[in-house]
Formats: sequence, C-alpha cells, structure tokens
Amino acid sequence: MVVRNQIRVIYGDTDAMGHAYYGCYLRWFEAGRSEWFRSSGATYRELEEMGVFLPAVEAHCKYQKPAFYDDLLTVVTTFQFSGPARLRFDYRIEHEGELLATGYTVHVCMSRDRKAIRPPEALKTLLHSMEEQS
Amino acid sequence: MVVRNQIRVIYGDTDAMGHAYYGCYLRWFEAGRSEWFRSSGATYRELEEMGVFLPAVEAHCKYQKPAFYDDLLTVVTTFQFSGPARLRFDYRIEHEGELLATGYTVHVCMSRDRKAIRPPEALKTLLHSMEEQS
Amino acid sequence: MVVRNQIRVIYGDTDAMGHAYYGCYLRWFEAGRSEWFRSSGATYRELEEMGVFLPAVEAHCKYQKPAFYDDLLTVVTTFQFSGPARLRFDYRIEHEGELLATGYTVHVCMSRDRKAIRPPEALKTLLHSMEEQS
Amino acid sequence: MVVRNQIRVIYGDTDAMGHAYYGCYLRWFEAGRSEWFRSSGATYRELEEMGVFLPAVEAHCKYQKPAFYDDLLTVVTTFQFSGPARLRFDYRIEHEGELLATGYTVHVCMSRDRKAIRPPEALKTLLHSMEEQS
Repeated sequence: MVVRNQIRVIYGDTDAMGHAYYGCYLRWFEAGRSEWFRSSGATYRELEEMGVFLPAVEAHCKYQKPAFYDDLLTVVTTFQFSGPARLRFDYRIEHEGELLATGYTVHVCMSRDRKAIRPPEALKTLLHSMEEQS
Repeated sequence: MVVRNQIRVIYGDTDAMGHAYYGCYLRWFEAGRSEWFRSSGATYRELEEMGVFLPAVEAHCKYQKPAFYDDLLTVVTTFQFSGPARLRFDYRIEHEGELLATGYTVHVCMSRDRKAIRPPEALKTLLHSMEEQS
Repeated sequence: MVVRNQIRVIYGDTDAMGHAYYGCYLRWFEAGRSEWFRSSGATYRELEEMGVFLPAVEAHCKYQKPAFYDDLLTVVTTFQFSGPARLRFDYRIEHEGELLATGYTVHVCMSRDRKAIRPPEALKTLLHSMEEQS
Repeated sequence: MVVRNQIRVIYGDTDAMGHAYYGCYLRWFEAGRSEWFRSSGATYRELEEMGVFLPAVEAHCKYQKPAFYDDLLTVVTTFQFSGPARLRFDYRIEHEGELLATGYTVHVCMSRDRKAIRPPEALKTLLHSMEEQS
C-alpha cells in the first residue's frame, strides 16, 4: 500500500542556507511511517502499547532539490520486508509534483527491555497484507 | 552556585533568517540545567534513576541579540527555590562577553507514574546548599 | 481573529520522559503563527519576500498537561499589538478539548540587514483589521 | 586527517523509546564535519562567507547501539573525494570506546544563488591535503 501524507515546512525546519535542514527529512520519513501504520489499521502507538518497538537500524536519504519554508510537502511511503525480521520503508518527498528527495529506513523488532525479537504473528500478517497491496 | 557551560551553534540550529532559531534556546537552557546538576554532584540522570523527574511547568526567554552559526556560546545557569516544591533555574546566553538572551524555567517534582511529589529530602538538601552558594 | 491549526506529535518530538519535549512547543507556536498569517491573507513568506522579518524578542510557555506521541493537537492563535511596533501572539495548545499549554511570543519588525523598522503601513492595516476581529 | 569531537546527549535528543532519536545523528555528523573544517584551518563559516556552500546530496546512517541521555559521545570524522566535485565525509559515533553508529554524507559545491559549481582551487588544495593525511 502506498500512503501519502502532508507536511508543512516550518521556519524551525529551515537553516541559514535558506532551505530545509538535511536532518529534517528523517523526521518527515518518520511522520510518513506513522501515517503508513495508521492506514494499516494498527497505529505505531498501539504496537508500543503491546510491547513491540521498531527502532531504526539504517536510514538513507538522497537530496535532489531543496524544500523551502512554507512548502506543503507530500511524503509517499511504501513498505516491504527485507528479511524475515527486517522491515523496510521507502519514502519519496514531493512538492507540487516535483521529487525533492528519496530515502529508506530499515527497522527491527525490539521488546520493551531492548531485546531483538521476531515480529509477533499478528504484526507479520498485517505487514504481509500491506506489502501485497503495495 | 553559578554554572557555565559552552555550546557550539550548529547549522541545524540556524534558520532562514540566518541566525539561531528561537526554539533552540530552550535546548540550550536544558543543557545548562544538566551541567548545573552535574556540578551539584547529582546528575539529572541519577535523579531519574531514583524515580524523580523534573518536568518544566514554565519557560521564558528574552532574545536580545541573535546567535550565529559556529558561535561558541556560554550558558550561565543559577538556581533558586520559587516555592517549597518549585525549582527555578535562571539562564543567560552569552557570546564573547555579550549578552544574547536571558530566560528561566520552573520545574516541579514528579514520580515515574506522573504524580506530583514533594522533592525527596536528599534532593532538597542538595538544592538548598546549591542555592546558598549562588 | 482566532486561527486554529492541527499538529500531529511525532516520535521525534517526544523525550525519554515519554511525552513531548518542552522545546517543541515553540515550534508549534510558530506553526500556529504561520497559519494565522495565512488566514490573514498575507503569508509570512510573502512578508519576508517584501523584506520584512519578524524575529521573536520574547517567548513564554506554561505547561499544564503533557502531550504524547501521536496526539493530534490543536494550536489556537490570536494576535494583538503590544506597542506601536510590537506584535504579540497568544497561543493555546489543546488536545481533545483539554488545555495542555498556553503561551505567547512578542515580535518586532526587522529589515533584511537586521535593522529594527516600524511595520510598513500595509502590514499595520492588515494587523489592525485582524486584531479587531479577535 | 581524522578529527574527533565530543557531543553531550541532551534530553531534547532523546525520544519515548528512552534513547537518542534517529534523526539526531545527522546533527552530530554535521557537528563532526564542522569540527573537521575547523581542524583543516578553514571553517565552514569562512567558506560560506566566500560564497561556497556545501549542501548534502546524500546521507546514510547505520545504528548499532543506542545512545542515552547524558552520554558523552565522540564523533570521528574523515574525508575523501568521491568524484572531482563530490566531497564525502565518513563518521563513527562512539561512546566509551564502543561503536554506536557509522554513517556518511556526500556534498557538492554550490554558489550563493544555488548553482552547482566546481570546488574553488584553494578549497580543492586544502581538501586534497587533508585527504592525504587521513
């Protein structure tokens, strides 16, 4: 499933070069990922309440065009497994149809006490169903 | 006791106006507060490990001159009680002897389960001894 | 005029205490202010393109209840002059009808070369008309 | 040349999972890069004053162990050209001798009006001399 959500670039996101700071994109990826979970029917907040955490083990971003203050961006998020216990999200940041940046993050499942765990069956079923739709 | 610590303004702290974003000052106040605790002999991390949290209930900042990328700032932090269970920290942000901003934050004691508590005696004794030195 | 806009708390806004970091509120105030300008008919981006900058000279926040990850907050923004060349915005952060925080920021007019200027007549007229509606 | 600098994890860097937010690492990489330039004898601020900007076109991070509040981290930064006009910085984030994360960023030269430019000769000479020492 492809999930889109919108982000308004605020002044606090910009830097002295006049456009959005390169670190902000990981925040926007996270916002996209969060909306992706909401669209899947299970919010990430609920996952954590069940004791499942999904810390990032890898993040990547390619910056193609800058984003400016007040731009209304679209984050396009898709999901695929990249191993039995590795979740990969891909992101595109767009503005008025133009591609500004692409990136991905890889996540593993962790328990509340920071032990690596395999994704619970319910989560796996949900993720597989979402993957098939993408 | 007056505690000084240094902060380097990074690019990510700046905004499109070319100077440090107004929200960064609360981060710098926190860094000053954290160093203040370290100087007191009890780090804030240790307080939390004992189950004492000090959330801010009020924050204030007056901005007098801008801070720029790469400036090496000094945060000057002092402490006083502003009520039996209210901790007040005052801050000055300086650059090469010039005053850039002043501010304060007020904090209360909270337990791990977010209940307001009175400061434990050990903390109170420590804070009073630090207050007297200020 | 009273302007409302919505903010989703992301994971990057939270801190180890489990709720939104106290510094985030100044970002949310800025987002509210930005929407207020948009509602007034003149975006802050357009003001800057005309060479008018509105740096904050003061910011204040009272924190009453914490905001949590994934909360959909409402920022309620109003405006009044607090002197012939001082703009004051007041903010309320609400969640599901509950008040989480209140605050204000004070701004002055500045030219591109960082000189204090009086608000241009067009801006003054616009701000006065918005003030009357509030 | 290998450049080391230290970063204290503040509360504002942490998230509800109890460790540093994954987006913070790009800020720390930037702080490392900035110190690298300072060690080279030409601060990045001076480069910008000469009209040379080095926006990131790519960023990558692998997270191996979490960083916690109050940790004093070391950022280890090295440099190499990855093409005649592409600058690549590699980073290691360490805590008490343990490796927490690795990453890199790739940068191009840009003029003040956002046009891609080749690195000026003086910068190229400086970067080559630093590369040889690494």
